[in-house]
Amino acid sequence: MKRKSLDDAACPIARSLESIGEWWSLLIVRDALMGKRRFGEFQKSLGLAKNILAARLRKLVARGIFRLEPAADGGAHREYVLTDKGRELGMALFALRLWGYRWLYSDTDPALRIAVDRATGEKIVGFALRTRDGHLVTPRDVTFLTRDGVEAEPVPPPAAP
Amino acid sequence: MKRKSLDDAACPIARSLESIGEWWSLLIVRDALMGKRRFGEFQKSLGLAKNILAARLRKLVARGIFRLEPAADGGAHREYVLTDKGRELGMALFALRLWGYRWLYSDTDPALRIAVDRATGEKIVGFALRTRDGHLVTPRDVTFLTRDGVEAEPVPPPAAP
Repeated sequence: MKRKSLDDAACPIARSLESIGEWWSLLIVRDALMGKRRFGEFQKSLGLAKNILAARLRKLVARGIFRLEPAADGGAHREYVLTDKGRELGMALFALRLWGYRWLYSDTDPALRIAVDRATGEKIVGFALRTRDGHLVTPRDVTFLTRDGVEAEPVPPPAAP
Repeated sequence: MKRKSLDDAACPIARSLESIGEWWSLLIVRDALMGKRRFGEFQKSLGLAKNILAARLRKLVARGIFRLEPAADGGAHREYVLTDKGRELGMALFALRLWGYRWLYSDTDPALRIAVDRATGEKIVGFALRTRDGHLVTPRDVTFLTRDGVEAEPVPPPAAP
């Protein structure tokens, strides 16, 4: 569908969706976070037509989410490596992962996974944030400031499960 | 593009993207989290053609992300209200919001917002999680168990900015 670009939207969610580009592109980022780097690895994982995958990867490189590097094994092919910008999409993917397990799996689904704190075995049920000085706070503790340090219009915190 | 459904994919991210459906649909959820409930409000905010918005909303209702309710003011129209399932997408949207502000805005962009801890003014720089018993932990503390309590294949934690 032809539509207006959201590159210059005020809303960071709209800009993010524009930058990520396509529905499938988050699955390419997911695969890269799991260690895939080669065109053939992405193609096998996603079952996408080669020309479509190539177009998606080209856009992700242009957007600075991937960069192209020489093959780690010295081969002739090049590899797709997530930039810092790309790796930080892991936050949104982690949230989608938790949402998916919570809402889209039956209790008997063999693919179901339960996120727990490794140290205590307690289930993960919600989302929190880390400040620069290392504190962990809940979304309700967060506010958004303008460049001038003025509190911006309130953004509702995500619902706690 | 016609493609295979990911409703039954093992991966929760793939299933989530399938369930959300379309690129634009997350912006409808965003608007609903900000308080919009009426077709005309979404249409004005998003600038989408009516037939396309109607199709998106129909799918979001079918997927259990919105439900239809009688108008709060007793009017003849019906309103689109997020279900619990829909509101919990707020976690993923919050992560996209932070990513967008971090990577897609110049320092001089008047729309730039800075997420801070309201109590201390410290910048938010990362992501954390809340356990059922109320503890906050980092993504690196999280592991995924199968239904039988066996640790599943490792999932890389999101990169810390």
